[in-house]
Amino acid sequence: MRPSVIAFDVNETLSDLSPLGARFVEVGASATAARLWFAATLRDGFALSAAGENPSFVAVARELLLSHLSEAQLNRSVEEATKQVMDGFASLELHADVANGVDSLAEDGFRLVTLSNGPVSVAERLLEAANLQGTFERLLSVEDAGAWKPSPVAYRYAAAECGVAPEEMLLVAVHPWDVHGARRAGLQSAWVNRSGAHFPAIFTEPTYTVSAIDELPELWAEAPPQV
Amino acid sequence: MRPSVIAFDVNETLSDLSPLGARFVEVGASATAARLWFAATLRDGFALSAAGENPSFVAVARELLLSHLSEAQLNRSVEEATKQVMDGFASLELHADVANGVDSLAEDGFRLVTLSNGPVSVAERLLEAANLQGTFERLLSVEDAGAWKPSPVAYRYAAAECGVAPEEMLLVAVHPWDVHGARRAGLQSAWVNRSGAHFPAIFTEPTYTVSAIDELPELWAEAPPQV
Repeated sequence: MRPSVIAFDVNETLSDLSPLGARFVEVGASATAARLWFAATLRDGFALSAAGENPSFVAVARELLLSHLSEAQLNRSVEEATKQVMDGFASLELHADVANGVDSLAEDGFRLVTLSNGPVSVAERLLEAANLQGTFERLLSVEDAGAWKPSPVAYRYAAAECGVAPEEMLLVAVHPWDVHGARRAGLQSAWVNRSGAHFPAIFTEPTYTVSAIDELPELWAEAPPQV
Repeated sequence: MRPSVIAFDVNETLSDLSPLGARFVEVGASATAARLWFAATLRDGFALSAAGENPSFVAVARELLLSHLSEAQLNRSVEEATKQVMDGFASLELHADVANGVDSLAEDGFRLVTLSNGPVSVAERLLEAANLQGTFERLLSVEDAGAWKPSPVAYRYAAAECGVAPEEMLLVAVHPWDVHGARRAGLQSAWVNRSGAHFPAIFTEPTYTVSAIDELPELWAEAPPQV
């Protein structure tokens, strides 16, 4: 079924987080420490969700950064290093495959929104910097849903905000846990596998798999004509 | 209040996971990749919990290992490397501060149990190898609770199994998310901070903080006499 609304995850799906790794190196830590920090941020955000809370993504990311950078040999104070990395969120750019992909989808008549565990402001700045803000109907955050993805509450909130049934919405994400959560909540899903990674068998298979966002329009381009 | 039952987390709290890092190096990956893998295992286990499931810890760990090792330059096949690391769980040993600590607590009259997101078999083998199996009354796993820690369901299951009110049980763990979950579920908690780490402010403060498990008995040794 052709979805009517396509919801994009933001961090790592639309934005390229590698400049955050470069900032780790800048302050004296390592780029691999950046990956560990991002995994730990999601781990502890999910843990807080499991314990019944709906924490601020930025607060979790900052606190974990303080913990992780405390273990490194930094060339400045932990507080300054933390600020230097966190400030990086404000200058992230889109992956190269995003702009063409979302433009085509908008032209093809899909309604486009974002759905992030992070704040709306991050998505807003990212899309404005790429002159794409007008292409998206709504920028949604789980801050207003009451629970982080991959709780079903988050996806159903997004569908309800867009006035569609869950199965009319497609969630696009690079993270297997996110496409899994979307499917479990009744949405369609597309996994963006830019690196040729293995999809962990513990998760529900995505409806679609693409290697870049500009491959999404092709999924519905060759639908057979209705007779 | 002096707890009547002390519940110990198992992985990293009782067991020293560093030999798993050594096995990563053995197969051609890096020890930092081991830390990333363990964080990702918890992240994805928590994600599955948030999506409404109660996955097997071993299945999550193995699938994530396949994904993570696929990215490394290994000196054998991914399947063989995965087996080599997973087999390491069966030969882990206790941290040096554990045996004396739990022996003293048992002598002081505390009832001791384990409560793990992993299977009972891992705790069993670990304690048998150290001749400590008789010191523990029960070995509990969230496999029987219906939800992973830090869901309140997991801690309340443990208290119910031991026939005590949540506040009569103390959870001991190295992971801030675990002591947080315990407190939120009404238990007391002790954070074991072996490395002098920063306790992330996003989590509820533990009831007690110790730098090793053999410091636990002291917490109740000097209680003022009841007048």
